Amino acid sequence: MSSLVFLDPAYPAGYLADIAAPQLPVTAQGVTRGDGVFESMLYTNQAVRKFEAHLARLATSAELADLVIPDARSWYAAVDTAVADFDATGGAEEAVVKLIAARGEHDEDPAICWVTVTPAPALGKEQRETGVDVLLLDRGYDSKLAERAPWLMMGAKTLSYSVNMAALRYARKHGAHDVIFTSADGIVLEAPTSTVLVAQRDGETKRLLTPMLETGILPGTTQSAIFDAAAQNGWELGYGPLRPEDLYQADGVWLVSSIRLLTPVRTIDAKPLRLDAELHDELSALSDAIR
Amino acid sequence: MSSLVFLDPAYPAGYLADIAAPQLPVTAQGVTRGDGVFESMLYTNQAVRKFEAHLARLATSAELADLVIPDARSWYAAVDTAVADFDATGGAEEAVVKLIAARGEHDEDPAICWVTVTPAPALGKEQRETGVDVLLLDRGYDSKLAERAPWLMMGAKTLSYSVNMAALRYARKHGAHDVIFTSADGIVLEAPTSTVLVAQRDGETKRLLTPMLETGILPGTTQSAIFDAAAQNGWELGYGPLRPEDLYQADGVWLVSSIRLLTPVRTIDAKPLRLDAELHDELSALSDAIR
Repeated sequence: MSSLVFLDPAYPAGYLADIAAPQLPVTAQGVTRGDGVFESMLYTNQAVRKFEAHLARLATSAELADLVIPDARSWYAAVDTAVADFDATGGAEEAVVKLIAARGEHDEDPAICWVTVTPAPALGKEQRETGVDVLLLDRGYDSKLAERAPWLMMGAKTLSYSVNMAALRYARKHGAHDVIFTSADGIVLEAPTSTVLVAQRDGETKRLLTPMLETGILPGTTQSAIFDAAAQNGWELGYGPLRPEDLYQADGVWLVSSIRLLTPVRTIDAKPLRLDAELHDELSALSDAIR
Repeated sequence: MSSLVFLDPAYPAGYLADIAAPQLPVTAQGVTRGDGVFESMLYTNQAVRKFEAHLARLATSAELADLVIPDARSWYAAVDTAVADFDATGGAEEAVVKLIAARGEHDEDPAICWVTVTPAPALGKEQRETGVDVLLLDRGYDSKLAERAPWLMMGAKTLSYSVNMAALRYARKHGAHDVIFTSADGIVLEAPTSTVLVAQRDGETKRLLTPMLETGILPGTTQSAIFDAAAQNGWELGYGPLRPEDLYQADGVWLVSSIRLLTPVRTIDAKPLRLDAELHDELSALSDAIR
């Protein structure tokens, strides 16, 4: 059902391991300190979407975390091994391919690196259809912090995701599905596992906006791919600063990620948002066409 | 040399496992999301210091993280099993006992809980003697955030420690040993793995200060124990807000933690600090006497 492959210099294509069995030492800093980096990619129609963009972001995260990881060729080969096993043992219409590099026990130890392939959660597909209710929550950082505080590794996708998970639990306890974080100075940032997209219709002009990266958010690979496709289809593009008012006044707000794709935001703090059906259909088509 | 015990309802005293062997599934959210809680305690002279305080803090962290963990009796029994094995296989003058509870793959799965006992790192002992050079680094949060943003789980000791580790690496790259974090509004917070203590001598009065907990810092079990002992020895106690000036003007600044105990800060941002030898000796004696 699910597949696991470890990267190992002795095995150029990686080696298969039992995902249901214990595999990691309790002493790895990847475990004890959440000290590692990762990516989640969508595998569908026999292909991993945006593989190159994810590998590039993994490399950036690793560099920010001072973690030496295997080269792209090793990741490609390990993913090939993993998805072949996944397909041979049942497969799924949509699957999540995770790349993980975790720091070992000692800083000089090689990173422990693996790939998992698991069926995509049904919830993502459901929410794509129905949309999500979102809470605006303060992330506590001001929007200029990333530039002045490199030691905080903002923009790196690390295994230290417990605050992201806690914010999602908080939302669910308060009757919502998801969260959009704002900065201490009131700027729209990102969702715990997604990027925010905003559409505006202005006469004949269609405009697609997203928070600027300088706020320290994770550069979204899906946002970037949709932006590229939208530009080719005549959209104007723009980068924040965005404020909550911009969300309430938009003709559509979406959370996008590699796994959930394009998910419309139905309400923010229980206030209904506008969703221009034509813009939604057009962006959905662009999102579905990402390779 | 080092020992590992897993907690398990089927084994009231826990069960010993091989710390050098793979033990954890790659799918646990404790691994993939840094989603879990922990404590580090000092084991010396056949006893775990401040066991009760650490268990209390573990319980608080688990509650903040919505994680159901075993009761105190199970942790006591598992630690007994672990230190007995540690002593029987060589032991050490000072050892670190770690308690870890990691979220499983699904939210409804029981937490994966274990205890490790490992020799204390030599570095801590060394720095206790020589003192440490420290950088002041912005943590990015303002000092009022914890109160208004419970979804950030501030004050919980979670496995998501990668920023703490990154700050320490940043300090070492810049010629220092450690870090004192400040808030975005310039208030002294904590070190990545320690609490800040400040002493002031004012005529006959000896005053011991520490940042206030309302800033969202971790409540220090060692700070609390030293405060209790100091109060009994005639010290005045105080809680911040502290500003960097307070550190530069103090008669002693220390980083304290369960493992490193009382470590004097020699310089901050390369500016030498005063260290009143008498106050240092007195606090060292109080720290050594913690049970």
